[in-house]
Amino acid sequence: MTIEKGDLLYTGKAKMMYQTTDPDVLWVDYLDQATALNGKRKVAIDQKGLLNNRISSLIFKDLAQHGIANHFIDQLSEHVQLVRRVNMIPLETVVRNAASGSFERKFNVPHLTSFATPVMEFFYKSDDLDDPFINDSQITALKIATPEVLAEMRRQALLVNDRLQTIFNEMTIELVDFKIEFGLTSTGHVLLADEISPDSCRLVDKKTKKSLDKDVFRHDLGDLTTVYQEVLNRLTAVEGSQA
Amino acid sequence: MTIEKGDLLYTGKAKMMYQTTDPDVLWVDYLDQATALNGKRKVAIDQKGLLNNRISSLIFKDLAQHGIANHFIDQLSEHVQLVRRVNMIPLETVVRNAASGSFERKFNVPHLTSFATPVMEFFYKSDDLDDPFINDSQITALKIATPEVLAEMRRQALLVNDRLQTIFNEMTIELVDFKIEFGLTSTGHVLLADEISPDSCRLVDKKTKKSLDKDVFRHDLGDLTTVYQEVLNRLTAVEGSQA
Ligand SMILES: Nc1ncnc2c1ncn2[C@@H]1O[C@H](COP(=O)(O)OP(=O)(O)O)[C@@H](O)[C@H]1O
Ligand SMILES: Nc1ncnc2c1ncn2[C@@H]1O[C@H](COP(=O)(O)OP(=O)(O)O)[C@@H](O)[C@H]1O
Ligand SMILES: [Mg+2]
Ligand SMILES: [Mg+2]
Repeated sequence: MTIEKGDLLYTGKAKMMYQTTDPDVLWVDYLDQATALNGKRKVAIDQKGLLNNRISSLIFKDLAQHGIANHFIDQLSEHVQLVRRVNMIPLETVVRNAASGSFERKFNVPHLTSFATPVMEFFYKSDDLDDPFINDSQITALKIATPEVLAEMRRQALLVNDRLQTIFNEMTIELVDFKIEFGLTSTGHVLLADEISPDSCRLVDKKTKKSLDKDVFRHDLGDLTTVYQEVLNRLTAVEGSQA
Repeated sequence: MTIEKGDLLYTGKAKMMYQTTDPDVLWVDYLDQATALNGKRKVAIDQKGLLNNRISSLIFKDLAQHGIANHFIDQLSEHVQLVRRVNMIPLETVVRNAASGSFERKFNVPHLTSFATPVMEFFYKSDDLDDPFINDSQITALKIATPEVLAEMRRQALLVNDRLQTIFNEMTIELVDFKIEFGLTSTGHVLLADEISPDSCRLVDKKTKKSLDKDVFRHDLGDLTTVYQEVLNRLTAVEGSQA
């Protein structure tokens, strides 16, 4: 049975999610656009969808090969991938290996101060509330996730961090921080979902110290397509040599 | 040996702390003033220091009698108490039994929604940074406290909550939330310090549903002295009957 694209389920800031002929499978269309400030700024960017689709596909495939199960099924075309449908947990899980962005501003620590152990933060995905920073007891009280689910998210997030650091290290890139999202399968298991791309990671070239991520767009540091293409090139070199 | 007042150590928003002839003992002078908005608004309020000194003394004495060790030594006079000096941990520990204040605003939940289990939050005491909300891994990364110290603070905070709920219940008052501070003794033990008063608790009269705490000042709901005096009267009735 070939899988066919069905009704539009959700239009996000970076992707459009469609149902398919298989109720457990979603059709993900990676958009050629970038947003900042929680969607308040939106710009069309040629190739971005294609590049993120390719990068995220390679990374999720690598993670699965390294024992970290996730929603990725297959890349269908330049902009499309198939993923396993889950019930998204409305939390962004942020893992930080060094200080940057909101952490740096909030605690006034020098840029890229590295941490002895990774810092982990949860943000409640709610456009109405502006994605507030949230702690475990608030998450539990608001019934967003149980303590058991949170513990499992933490466990998987640290495994993802370890593997991503290895990959990016081989690409001469420092993984400063990243954001991931999890969902629950129909059997209640926590499964890594959404995407891992330069949109959701803070990456710094170890030699030039230049940003290789969405900060290029956020802070107008140059051409986003060139930078994402560079990340894809290095990732392909590393992942190619594994096969 | 009688203890004598020594050099001024610190002027806070609600108290002045002095050294004494005993290096392990501080002389705390409760001020007749109220502040809001992190000290930006400051008003002289007759009797406030006296009332908070009395209330906090009675509560700390009660907690000690119920197995919760703390810094309180003795009330010396209307505005003065002696406490054991500790190295303050720069965290405010907030325990919430129902939604109010910043929680209510941040998560847009109905006022006084009660929680199945208490919510606990830490805020980093830093005037420069505006006392930011902080989570465990940030606290650890910034070396503000170890995971072990945090666990002990949580344990004690829940015991304090249990006992305070019992006391206020007998006073026909609902304990909505409160803030406490801990310090480390010279031997590294976590010890409850600072104060517990209507300045640091959110209290609601169970019958009239009126605020019996600093919200009266924050939101201009009436005369603070009258309200604090009412809390002291009820507390004295309850604590008196225990002796
Ligand atoms: N496997 C999945 N099953 C269901 N929903 C998913 C899955 N993976 C990602 N999603 C959700 O689909 C949406 C992806 O679109 P995106 O453009 O990233 O949205 P957002 O604007 O929320 O960032 C997100 O809401 C994400 O949580
Ligand atoms: N036992 C103690 N030993 C040392 N410092 C203490 C003790 N108890 C409280 N403190 C500190 O003394 C100060 C009390 O003054 P306060 O007016 O409440 O200050 P603030 O403006 O920080 O709220 C606070 O900084 C508090 O942390
Ligand atoms: Mg997204
Ligand atoms: Mg204080």
